[in-house]
Amino acid sequence: MTRRPRAHELGLTIGQLPRGNHNAITDVGGVLVGHVTLVEGQGRLVPGKGPVRTGATAILPHDGNLYLDKVAAGVHTINGYGKACGFEQVRELGTIETPILLTNTLNVGLVWDALVTYSIGRNPGIGITTGTINPIVAEINDGHLNDVQGRHVKEEHVLTAIQGASGGPIDEGCVGGGTGAIAFGFKAGIGTASRITPSEAGGFTLGALVQSNFGRREDLIVNGYPLGREQADHEPSHKEEGSVVIVLATDAPCSSRQLTRIARRAAHGLARSGAYTGHSSGDFALAFSTTNRRSHDPADQHLQKSATLISEDKVISYLFKATVECVEEAVINALLRAETMIGRDGHVAQAIPLEVLKPAIYPSGG
Amino acid sequence: MTRRPRAHELGLTIGQLPRGNHNAITDVGGVLVGHVTLVEGQGRLVPGKGPVRTGATAILPHDGNLYLDKVAAGVHTINGYGKACGFEQVRELGTIETPILLTNTLNVGLVWDALVTYSIGRNPGIGITTGTINPIVAEINDGHLNDVQGRHVKEEHVLTAIQGASGGPIDEGCVGGGTGAIAFGFKAGIGTASRITPSEAGGFTLGALVQSNFGRREDLIVNGYPLGREQADHEPSHKEEGSVVIVLATDAPCSSRQLTRIARRAAHGLARSGAYTGHSSGDFALAFSTTNRRSHDPADQHLQKSATLISEDKVISYLFKATVECVEEAVINALLRAETMIGRDGHVAQAIPLEVLKPAIYPSGG
Amino acid sequence: MTRRPRAHELGLTIGQLPRGNHNAITDVGGVLVGHVTLVEGQGRLVPGKGPVRTGATAILPHDGNLYLDKVAAGVHTINGYGKACGFEQVRELGTIETPILLTNTLNVGLVWDALVTYSIGRNPGIGITTGTINPIVAEINDGHLNDVQGRHVKEEHVLTAIQGASGGPIDEGCVGGGTGAIAFGFKAGIGTASRITPSEAGGFTLGALVQSNFGRREDLIVNGYPLGREQADHEPSHKEEGSVVIVLATDAPCSSRQLTRIARRAAHGLARSGAYTGHSSGDFALAFSTTNRRSHDPADQHLQKSATLISEDKVISYLFKATVECVEEAVINALLRAETMIGRDGHVAQAIPLEVLKPAIYPSGG
Amino acid sequence: MTRRPRAHELGLTIGQLPRGNHNAITDVGGVLVGHVTLVEGQGRLVPGKGPVRTGATAILPHDGNLYLDKVAAGVHTINGYGKACGFEQVRELGTIETPILLTNTLNVGLVWDALVTYSIGRNPGIGITTGTINPIVAEINDGHLNDVQGRHVKEEHVLTAIQGASGGPIDEGCVGGGTGAIAFGFKAGIGTASRITPSEAGGFTLGALVQSNFGRREDLIVNGYPLGREQADHEPSHKEEGSVVIVLATDAPCSSRQLTRIARRAAHGLARSGAYTGHSSGDFALAFSTTNRRSHDPADQHLQKSATLISEDKVISYLFKATVECVEEAVINALLRAETMIGRDGHVAQAIPLEVLKPAIYPSGG
Repeated sequence: MTRRPRAHELGLTIGQLPRGNHNAITDVGGVLVGHVTLVEGQGRLVPGKGPVRTGATAILPHDGNLYLDKVAAGVHTINGYGKACGFEQVRELGTIETPILLTNTLNVGLVWDALVTYSIGRNPGIGITTGTINPIVAEINDGHLNDVQGRHVKEEHVLTAIQGASGGPIDEGCVGGGTGAIAFGFKAGIGTASRITPSEAGGFTLGALVQSNFGRREDLIVNGYPLGREQADHEPSHKEEGSVVIVLATDAPCSSRQLTRIARRAAHGLARSGAYTGHSSGDFALAFSTTNRRSHDPADQHLQKSATLISEDKVISYLFKATVECVEEAVINALLRAETMIGRDGHVAQAIPLEVLKPAIYPSGG
Repeated sequence: MTRRPRAHELGLTIGQLPRGNHNAITDVGGVLVGHVTLVEGQGRLVPGKGPVRTGATAILPHDGNLYLDKVAAGVHTINGYGKACGFEQVRELGTIETPILLTNTLNVGLVWDALVTYSIGRNPGIGITTGTINPIVAEINDGHLNDVQGRHVKEEHVLTAIQGASGGPIDEGCVGGGTGAIAFGFKAGIGTASRITPSEAGGFTLGALVQSNFGRREDLIVNGYPLGREQADHEPSHKEEGSVVIVLATDAPCSSRQLTRIARRAAHGLARSGAYTGHSSGDFALAFSTTNRRSHDPADQHLQKSATLISEDKVISYLFKATVECVEEAVINALLRAETMIGRDGHVAQAIPLEVLKPAIYPSGG
Repeated sequence: MTRRPRAHELGLTIGQLPRGNHNAITDVGGVLVGHVTLVEGQGRLVPGKGPVRTGATAILPHDGNLYLDKVAAGVHTINGYGKACGFEQVRELGTIETPILLTNTLNVGLVWDALVTYSIGRNPGIGITTGTINPIVAEINDGHLNDVQGRHVKEEHVLTAIQGASGGPIDEGCVGGGTGAIAFGFKAGIGTASRITPSEAGGFTLGALVQSNFGRREDLIVNGYPLGREQADHEPSHKEEGSVVIVLATDAPCSSRQLTRIARRAAHGLARSGAYTGHSSGDFALAFSTTNRRSHDPADQHLQKSATLISEDKVISYLFKATVECVEEAVINALLRAETMIGRDGHVAQAIPLEVLKPAIYPSGG
Repeated sequence: MTRRPRAHELGLTIGQLPRGNHNAITDVGGVLVGHVTLVEGQGRLVPGKGPVRTGATAILPHDGNLYLDKVAAGVHTINGYGKACGFEQVRELGTIETPILLTNTLNVGLVWDALVTYSIGRNPGIGITTGTINPIVAEINDGHLNDVQGRHVKEEHVLTAIQGASGGPIDEGCVGGGTGAIAFGFKAGIGTASRITPSEAGGFTLGALVQSNFGRREDLIVNGYPLGREQADHEPSHKEEGSVVIVLATDAPCSSRQLTRIARRAAHGLARSGAYTGHSSGDFALAFSTTNRRSHDPADQHLQKSATLISEDKVISYLFKATVECVEEAVINALLRAETMIGRDGHVAQAIPLEVLKPAIYPSGG
């Protein structure tokens, strides 16, 4: 099968800022992404057995020990009809101290537990000589294709996803936590994109990774073109509202307050792709900075040197714009890179036909 | 001068849901809107004197005594870099008990005070035999055209706006609180729109009114078309990030929690018009229901009859969609209906030329 | 061993409102509580093996199918340095649809997963023909006594706690999720209390259950008496800041907004016992109403009859006062009912000596 | 009349940390406080005329130009049934850029407007060559004694309070914004206190100033002693629930996130004095740091040097404890220093008799 193209390969120029090297969240130096993809069995659903169409995606803010070297972070709940874990502590302390894991809804508990195992493995003093940890897990419901009751993502899968995480280009579409995802009535999954702010605004990189599983077909907008309205007469395979998780990374040194502001702009990017964030769409955004870190064991003194931060007046609007553009493009990439999948009970999620996207391609990129 | 057209008159079909009778927030039965528009003087700015290009817009959820007959409400702060007043109490109690006033930034205090005078006039026991009141005031900075230091909106102007409020068609563009507004480098102001949910979702009406004063020209999107990029070489008259206030009304009987959810979708509508909500853009949304009311003086008993509310699973996603469509269209209406204005120090804010909108008009309504 | 007394049995009269029949959260009709207590091994810590000093406590808002018959709920994060799960959805939808489970910090994932198993067992359509579920799990760190890395609370323990849940008197102290808890340098655990509002305020019952594991000895206040200062020279067994989880139940028909307001008063009750909610004390409160319920499958119509709710002006201040009194007393009951425990590595957590409480007992009940 | 004593002068030792030099918010270096007290007329209320029993209190975080040299800040809404203004922007940007003004409820608008005048006076470019400002105003309802409809605090009074602000000892009781205040059925008003953290936690100073106007007599607790229960048979002069505003200052260099955490502990301090924060008690807290500042006009570069901040793990719990102790003591000081006042319609608010406090004085301060 020929490799399906990404948005910019198809000629779609989304937004105005330049893309990073791989047009991926991993363009933010040090960020690693790993997937574990579970596809087994076919035919009739036997709850607890299969068919299996799920997985997990791990995003590591850096390749060191995240527990000892935490990153500044912020979160935003666009619509809290979802089971994201770990947000309370990020709001309070403004840091992330584990890999961020994306999986299916009912698997959150086991993946949370696997993050504990992983963190203890690297930090044997957890809960004995030092504090505990705050696992970050978010999810989408892939139950239209997957035996979601089966909770097929086990501890070893999570560890595999983390250990296999790498920089550079990222697999998109039906991989990792996006394996069984459907968006706008088409097969979807993981998508990513990145942008670079102008040099007068620091030349910072911001990248997004989405686990995209939301939207009704009639609502799909691609690069401003209301494509879904024309496709709405073709009966979509699936009409649930789904969910979407957005992870944002930047090398701009931002405080947790500033990252929270960035996370809030994820909604704007979703909206450009047609989202109105339906009632049951559990939409959550997280943002972290790779260059504003906090040590788990600060020296025993009452003051600590802070990171040099961005000049908010000069820089943050560009990071907002980068966020909106990355999220919009990542959602489209997730659709484009996904291939048709047949899941439980013969449910089919069709890949979006490339030809329907033509009207969305502007001749001169804008 | 020929009357400039609204979006749908120009052939722009934004979204999918049907418009209400006047395509205005006043399509929600009982909602009244009044403007006071202050335009005086020209030439060089003399702080405290003029020129004056400002005003106030009053939105009344119903024509009764709002203090005695409060409406359920929710608020959402998209970006808190602004001076909106009264939000704390709406969050706590879920009600609005005064008209909602929109004015210029530095005039918030006097308009707040005028709402006290207005409310005391109708309810002489305030602060004597009963509690106090919670005025709702929001604002945009019209200082590029207006002598904003002058705080020219006085008590009598506020009372005039309230007393003149009416249902039916609404003046848009350079009126009321939008008199001196600029959006996307073009003259802007007040805009409105409405939508009706399908009959199987109750056939409810939802309307939006925006006080639109945000965005850089290069970012303007009209009906999906990135119009601003083409116009960006023409130097915009004004590059500040501005602000936008969104008021949402519905006759669907919603709780304050549900109205808060609705208010949060305002950001999605803004995003469709090009907003990424820049650093200094103070963007606030309020939503109220005309059919879920609470009496100021409930009978002296420990239980009270609740309103019948919407079935959230069946209805609220349509109200979300209506919100997104209304807000997007209201922003475009504010641009279209505004006319070129010359303000303080000869600053010119040009109306958007109608011909540049042509590529955004889809032959068959999208 | 003689049974240690509860606060009121010792003559401590905390607050002013009358207690319920059992002075327990189960005085709220229909509320069930179950504990599973795990105490095994002694001596040196072998991570993953033991000694085990932990457990789980299940609170069921009613004895029916919680998924089909959800209860209105609100949450409040006093200090988010903790791993509570499920709060995002409660904030958004205002309902709880599973038992509430309290356990140790690192066990949250497995307990979350067990709640999925439990809920699927009663509702086989979860994730297949209907939506997913939102497990509610909160925690304290019992690692000073317990092999917390071992995550000894397994699925069968959670199911046991739920299935064994009952009304009537509740075991307090070193049971369930409080088995390994320490507060104010003394052995602590689970505590409960209840209050009844005056008949002119509805005669409603409100009950609290706390999983108490917080505070330094020097800060303990009992019934207003700063007892901890006098005991501070005795070296406390443990100086960590810990955490506390507060579950509040009422039969007053409250909306989720009102329940959120109630949950916020938990902090006031903690403060009376000496809490200033230290940096690392993850303090969370949940409140639910047994008489304001929402069906999982509402009839297919766009309006639904709402519950009759409390008259907020008349009733809610009494529920606030009841909350403060219950929480204060429940914290004291957790201390009083706990017995000395020896945990991992020979760590001893001493029960508070009853005689030190004497100065806190006012001759005439306050 | 003999000067009434403050809490510690009476022998009340509240909490454990040492007091600052003046036991006042002004012990935080650079903080200035000014009052304007308006007492005119007597007898029957003539709305709009008098009698007048009100005023304003201004707290200046430093004596420089606050607009150009903003201080880091955080806010917390304990109960949003109140009209505090300016909180949205503090939440978003984490700074305060005007004096903080405390006044009566219906006067918020005029005081807000006066802060605009004051700020323009020092910064003539506001709204012309630079942005606007965010006035901070909070309030209590003094309408039991005062002609609150009259809004007697005028622009000149606000400017007087600001210009007269000074460091050193602070007037308490019936002054400034506390002139007409009543708490626990006794005359109250402004109170203040301060604490110093141990030298190993930086030796920082934290001070509180409260505008105290809340609580029913029966609920008053002084230093742990439930004094109000004994006084409850004496009919209190006033039974409304009122409100309280808490301003916290520290010289510890804290981020806005950390200051928000500090502001949240104000509720704990209130609770110790008997508060359960009734339905209509609009309770708001603000916290700022004098040593973490942000320039209005940062150099034109994309990075800025950050402040050295506290080591959160080592220091913040002491600041929390200091907050709780200061707030509790400031509430008591406001009661003790207030003198009996006769207000509108002959309403009498009696000063708390000093002898009733005796049981609250522990012989050895602990």
